[in-house]
Amino acid sequence: MARHSTRTHDVMAAILDQIARRTLLPGDKLPSIRRFAARMKVSPSTVVEAYDRLVAEGAVRSRPGSGFYVSAGAASPAVNELQPRADRAIDPLWVSRQSLDAAAQTLKPGCGWLPPDWMPGAILRRALRGLARADDALLANYGGTQGLLPLRQFLARRCAGEGLDLSPEQVLLTSSGTQAIDLICRFLLRPGDTVLVDDPCYFNFQALLRAHQARIVSVPYTPAGPDMARFAEILTEQRPRLYITTCGLHNPTGATMSAQTVHKVLTLAAAHGLVIVEDDIFAEFEPEPSPRLAAFDGLVNVIRIGSFSKTLSASVRCGYIATRPDWIEALVDLQVATQFGGASPLASQLVFDSLMDSGYRRHMAALRGRLSRARRDTQARLAELGIRTWVTPRGGFYLWCQLPDGRDAARLAQFALGEGVILAPGNVFSPAQQVPDFIRFNVAQMDDARIYAVLRAGLSARLVAAS
Amino acid sequence: MARHSTRTHDVMAAILDQIARRTLLPGDKLPSIRRFAARMKVSPSTVVEAYDRLVAEGAVRSRPGSGFYVSAGAASPAVNELQPRADRAIDPLWVSRQSLDAAAQTLKPGCGWLPPDWMPGAILRRALRGLARADDALLANYGGTQGLLPLRQFLARRCAGEGLDLSPEQVLLTSSGTQAIDLICRFLLRPGDTVLVDDPCYFNFQALLRAHQARIVSVPYTPAGPDMARFAEILTEQRPRLYITTCGLHNPTGATMSAQTVHKVLTLAAAHGLVIVEDDIFAEFEPEPSPRLAAFDGLVNVIRIGSFSKTLSASVRCGYIATRPDWIEALVDLQVATQFGGASPLASQLVFDSLMDSGYRRHMAALRGRLSRARRDTQARLAELGIRTWVTPRGGFYLWCQLPDGRDAARLAQFALGEGVILAPGNVFSPAQQVPDFIRFNVAQMDDARIYAVLRAGLSARLVAAS
Repeated sequence: MARHSTRTHDVMAAILDQIARRTLLPGDKLPSIRRFAARMKVSPSTVVEAYDRLVAEGAVRSRPGSGFYVSAGAASPAVNELQPRADRAIDPLWVSRQSLDAAAQTLKPGCGWLPPDWMPGAILRRALRGLARADDALLANYGGTQGLLPLRQFLARRCAGEGLDLSPEQVLLTSSGTQAIDLICRFLLRPGDTVLVDDPCYFNFQALLRAHQARIVSVPYTPAGPDMARFAEILTEQRPRLYITTCGLHNPTGATMSAQTVHKVLTLAAAHGLVIVEDDIFAEFEPEPSPRLAAFDGLVNVIRIGSFSKTLSASVRCGYIATRPDWIEALVDLQVATQFGGASPLASQLVFDSLMDSGYRRHMAALRGRLSRARRDTQARLAELGIRTWVTPRGGFYLWCQLPDGRDAARLAQFALGEGVILAPGNVFSPAQQVPDFIRFNVAQMDDARIYAVLRAGLSARLVAAS
Repeated sequence: MARHSTRTHDVMAAILDQIARRTLLPGDKLPSIRRFAARMKVSPSTVVEAYDRLVAEGAVRSRPGSGFYVSAGAASPAVNELQPRADRAIDPLWVSRQSLDAAAQTLKPGCGWLPPDWMPGAILRRALRGLARADDALLANYGGTQGLLPLRQFLARRCAGEGLDLSPEQVLLTSSGTQAIDLICRFLLRPGDTVLVDDPCYFNFQALLRAHQARIVSVPYTPAGPDMARFAEILTEQRPRLYITTCGLHNPTGATMSAQTVHKVLTLAAAHGLVIVEDDIFAEFEPEPSPRLAAFDGLVNVIRIGSFSKTLSASVRCGYIATRPDWIEALVDLQVATQFGGASPLASQLVFDSLMDSGYRRHMAALRGRLSRARRDTQARLAELGIRTWVTPRGGFYLWCQLPDGRDAARLAQFALGEGVILAPGNVFSPAQQVPDFIRFNVAQMDDARIYAVLRAGLSARLVAAS
């Protein structure tokens, strides 16, 4: 952790530690300044400064002429972090909560991100040092409502590389990819509106749509994209307002939409006034660009969204929306109303500087190779357990796998959680609950032999027999 | 701007500049590698790297055996930033959009933040350098759903200093103060629900509530808080679900709620099942803490929210919610669904390290003194124009002022916008449109004599005569 280990801070930390360990109780007098200074090997004025700051923070009260005392409220209950409950229902939020709040030693083959040492840490550190020299306005101000111009220009250029021409004015930076979709839902949906997603789809689409009180319908996903016969029927019968999908590398299946499917989806969308949100978050993991809805459509019926959480950092929150020019102003107004200002200028600059770093492309090229090897290895190790991949993905870190003999993935996930392993069972991805024997694995988080041991034990146990 | 001025980057910038100035048109061949290397005084391999990266970004296409060409889509329309339209209706979003997107030379006495050189830039730079040495996990990962523990512990201790005891588990970090309120509205409101605000109130409360399709009712604000007779009537007659107010230093009036008002508001809220959101964002500008709804109530009916945008940085987005323990889990779920993960760990660590910096308290003490002098000076200079403050605030940077002879503030604001000065006219703060002759001034943005010249000209012009 990056803390300033000033002497004052050390003194404060020593006192707070005693309060936390209840060696100092509420109402107790703090050690005298002279004595504590000697004990901590600092000057008395450092202790005065530390005590003063503890007073300002409320941990300590000063009684003039008498000394410093621990505040009544300082002894907050022992810090038990709010751990996700093990008995929590396995719903679309289950994987998120379990994996985000997991203890450090937990194994997370079910999570949706790379281990920290697979990420471009050195590039981010360089960008942070660069930011420490940025001008005052960038560090202090809200920034413009659409977000940092150089990053929007970069995104427009990157889209041009796919043949998708757009101006930086058609790009709106957001605080995350999810928030980008949330903003679009606010703009386009009313409670009760129907929204189409894939089955299976990224579980958080369901959680998000529930927050908007949308009616969720789903279309079966094939290795070439949504099942087009069902897609056509759903558009006619259910009249969804929106279709949300991950493109390039589909989440969770890792499949890629074919050019024919892209063309058909767009033709039907145009005929039915369907708006499509294309989540581009895994684009950079592709070996070469696949057919894209936004690139074929030219941002008429398609809205492109994305973020940098998978490739650069999930700690620096920044996402974007690319859309038709006449929708930008309303989206900006909504973002101002609900976030005030746009994406963090500091985060945006950090992303831009990192993407412009000469090491970034090399990092991504190496990462694609590493993931390719990890996919192969993991596939082989899972096959030994009778777990088979549904499709062999062209890139990325997901494998969508079927358990042997119709084993129940949710029960396996509950069992594994007890063993300190977080899995992502199929039905959290399935609005229609159609894939009880599937699991999504993250190959970058599968290097530990304990994972395979837990899977083996779980699969052989009676408790995860087919339901 | 913090950019890595590597040679590669310089070469890329030179090409992109030629494309932007249309000396290189789509389809044009790029200069040969050897020639351009000589011209830029770099090695040929640097130019190769730069061209490759331009290909990856889509600005350039490579034709094997032939060379590099400007992409068809590279010449995006000249970058005209989307400026706020001068003819935009003066509504609650008007001040936000005008001041956030203002050109650099615009004067902004209507905006809601301090100039960059009033903010603790040196402290933030130190924290950024510290973060460049943070561990990989902090820089790469999403972080826990409630947000960085040390910052939540700090906020709990600070609350304890007001006599408000709470555990860090009752604190949820968010990406901004506004997003904190947005999350609470998602949790507690259904479309059509009635929400009570002050009249006048922070204009973005209205914009936010409109996004939630809430029915807004307002209670006149007196120098001691809301008018309690009207408050009681409204609770009986309109049954609002929520009351949202800024405490300590009220926005826009700068007034402070009295202890009696706090007590009465809480008594009525308890009797009517009213939930109160107390926005604490200006707390650190108070000379000494004023009576607080959350501290009197103990977080039963009151939710405390805040952020660091006014005191530390608006570029580092981070806010928080402090609430009763049984509401945290639902708020976390909503935040995961709509943002995925919580507040940026990197931003949270930056805030925490800055607050723990030994210079922070000194900075705030000096800032309070500087603001106190600025309030006095501005009050005197406005008085010369016949503009009088409604109440003399105890702290902060706002003065709520009445124009002479019933002059129309909206018309004055339109006039001033034409002169490059952004004002905040009264009615954008007033749901009942009751204060057409009021203006909110930000004393930290009032040092330029041109502002007073524009005010003088506007007030004497026929166009802003009383309507």
